[in-house]
Order: sequence, then structure tokens, then C-alpha cells
Amino acid sequence: MTEALVLHEYSQSGNCYKIRLTAALLGLPLERREYDILQGETRTAAFLADVNPNGRIPVLQIDDRFIPESNAACFYLAEGSPLVPDDRFDCSDMLRWMFFEQYNHEPNVATMRFWMAFLGEEKLSEVQRASLPARREGGNAALKLMDDHLSTHAFFVAERLTLADIALYAYTHVAEEGGFDLSLYPAVGAWLARVADTRGYLPMSN
Amino acid sequence: MTEALVLHEYSQSGNCYKIRLTAALLGLPLERREYDILQGETRTAAFLADVNPNGRIPVLQIDDRFIPESNAACFYLAEGSPLVPDDRFDCSDMLRWMFFEQYNHEPNVATMRFWMAFLGEEKLSEVQRASLPARREGGNAALKLMDDHLSTHAFFVAERLTLADIALYAYTHVAEEGGFDLSLYPAVGAWLARVADTRGYLPMSN
Repeated sequence: MTEALVLHEYSQSGNCYKIRLTAALLGLPLERREYDILQGETRTAAFLADVNPNGRIPVLQIDDRFIPESNAACFYLAEGSPLVPDDRFDCSDMLRWMFFEQYNHEPNVATMRFWMAFLGEEKLSEVQRASLPARREGGNAALKLMDDHLSTHAFFVAERLTLADIALYAYTHVAEEGGFDLSLYPAVGAWLARVADTRGYLPMSN
Repeated sequence: MTEALVLHEYSQSGNCYKIRLTAALLGLPLERREYDILQGETRTAAFLADVNPNGRIPVLQIDDRFIPESNAACFYLAEGSPLVPDDRFDCSDMLRWMFFEQYNHEPNVATMRFWMAFLGEEKLSEVQRASLPARREGGNAALKLMDDHLSTHAFFVAERLTLADIALYAYTHVAEEGGFDLSLYPAVGAWLARVADTRGYLPMSN
């Protein structure tokens, strides 16, 4: 690729980390632009007009075009690489886990982490606070489903690392910051170690 | 395709309709198996073991293999067809709208419809009831974002019908059942008519 790639991000967000990790595994250079979401920097008129009308990070900029949604941005970077299976079933199955991540995992595991470790429980609204038990239950159900699958598979799809693993790794490996107990999910723990052991792996703090 | 395609579904679910609409537009025959989600028929031990450990419909069965997650199932059916752009940016942009649908649209627009028109507001738990204002606001924000985009585009991506349109059409065209006022979104209304006017279109009731 000869395009200029810019990641608009909040670096502690797991959704942003997915894109950095994908780029690192593929050896692609990324310019990074940081926004403080706690200060509303992705809700300014300029951001909404120029970067993402949805007011969210991450957004992957490719020259003068923009891809919001972390998993779509990863797909852009990795399409045609071994991180995206060629086989039609395997590619769809990879997307299945990526949609599962955004629907069942992220709203529970990532939101709990953001609320507990970044925003602070005392800042939650009453409605947010009332949703904590359901989010804890939903997050544990997602982790249990992953654990069951990983008890008989080294990776989520095609027995090798794909974007499905990257998407699910990002918030799972920091799930304890949201109050989840990963020791309950030993197959998840072994898989986290396999992902971190991949050649070209980049930790979240980098 | 010579595979046997079976859709495990609850036919009034928009997520299931996406798959029927995709198959219809592609001329693919689908066998249909109905589950009553109000009676817990997707949470039985047999369903969890044989169809989807996540206890949800739709699931697309291809011979003896299974793809849960509506948008992943649509991708399986449509890959290689004009409903999935070949161009890498356009394909990623299509996925961007499909992830937006599952993250920002479905949990608000579809959940409101299910609660109001199927479950009944009186059956909601206190926590569910407390989330109504946020879901109404989130749903309207998603519809506004779509309306803004469609005010300058005939379809979401690549100026033609793709899976992005199918994914967003399914629950948008019945959003009024969840209490949303579509007359506020005229560009959405015009786009709904364009989708319904597509050759091979199948209504949700079929």
C-alpha cells in the first residue's frame, strides 16, 4: 500500500488498539492523532464534519477517505492478507465473531471497563448504574461462550490468527479492569497468551 | 451454489428478514425453520448444542455448518455478487455501515420495536423501562445520521444497493412499530422506497 494511513483515536480504547495491532502484524505504518473522549474532542463540529458524523473514534483515514467502525477499519487493512481467510465460509465465520464482538462483548466488557476504570463508578447516571448487573451478566456470558469455543480451537476461525481474534482480544485482555475475573475462563487465558505470542505483536500500551 | 441452505429464524425478526431478502435478491432458495423466541425455543439445550451456543436467531445453516449473526450470514450468501462491492474501500465501507447497524441502530430501533410491538411495554423490567429514553434518543440519532448520508447518496455505499442497505433496511422500514416517526427523515423515506423498488425485492411478511 502506498496510501497515507492515519488513525484518529483515543489510544486507551480497545477499539483503537485493534487497528494498531492489525497494522503492526501487517507491518503497515500508521500516523496517530489522539482525541480526549473524556473532554468531548470527538463531538466537536469540526470532528463531526471532517472525520466521523457519528462522533466516535476510531476512524481510519486513507488519504482523504475515512472508515469509521473499528472492525471495518481492520478489514480494510487486512483484506488480502492471511488475517482474512480466503475461504468464503471461514471469512463469513470470521465476520460472525466480529459482529458478536460488537453486539454481545463490547457493550458489556468494554463499557464496564470504561465506566469502572476511566469514568469512575461515582460519575455514572442512575440509568447506567441500574444496567451494571445486566452488563456484568452479559459480559460473563460472552466470555463463557468464547471459553467454550476455545476449549477445542486454538483460534476462533480456521485454526490460525485472523481478525476475529484481534477484535475479541482487544477488550478481553483488559477485561479485569472492568471487574471481570478471567481466571474463570482458562481456555480464554491460554488463547490470550497465544495471541500475545504472535510474531509482530504490539501491546496496547505502545 | 449447490449447498442446502436452511434459515433458522423467527420470521418477524428484522435480523432474519435480512437473510431472506438477500437470498431473494440473489435467487437462492432457502428452507425455513421457525422458532418462537417468546417461548424460549432458541434457548433449549438442543438449540444451544446443535444450532447456536449464543441462543439466538437467525442462524444460516449451510449443509452441516452454521453461521450465526445476521450480517455475517448475508455476507456468506452475497460474497462474489454485486451486493458486495469488489473494491476494497467500498467493501470496508459497506461493513462500516453493517457494524453501525448492529452497534448503534439495532439495539435501539429493533429493541424498541420488540419491546413495544411484541413483548408489550407492561412486560418490561424496571431496568428495561429506565433505558427507554436513551434507546429512543439513540434510535433517533441513528436515523438522523442515515438521513444526512442519504440526502446526498442514493444508497449507502458505491451508489448502488449493497448489503449495507439490506442490513439497515430491515429494522428501519418497521421503525414506526417501535414508536419512531419516520416522517422526520425524508431522505430515509425516499431510500426505503428505492430499496422496495429493487428487482427481486421480497416484503418482510413473505
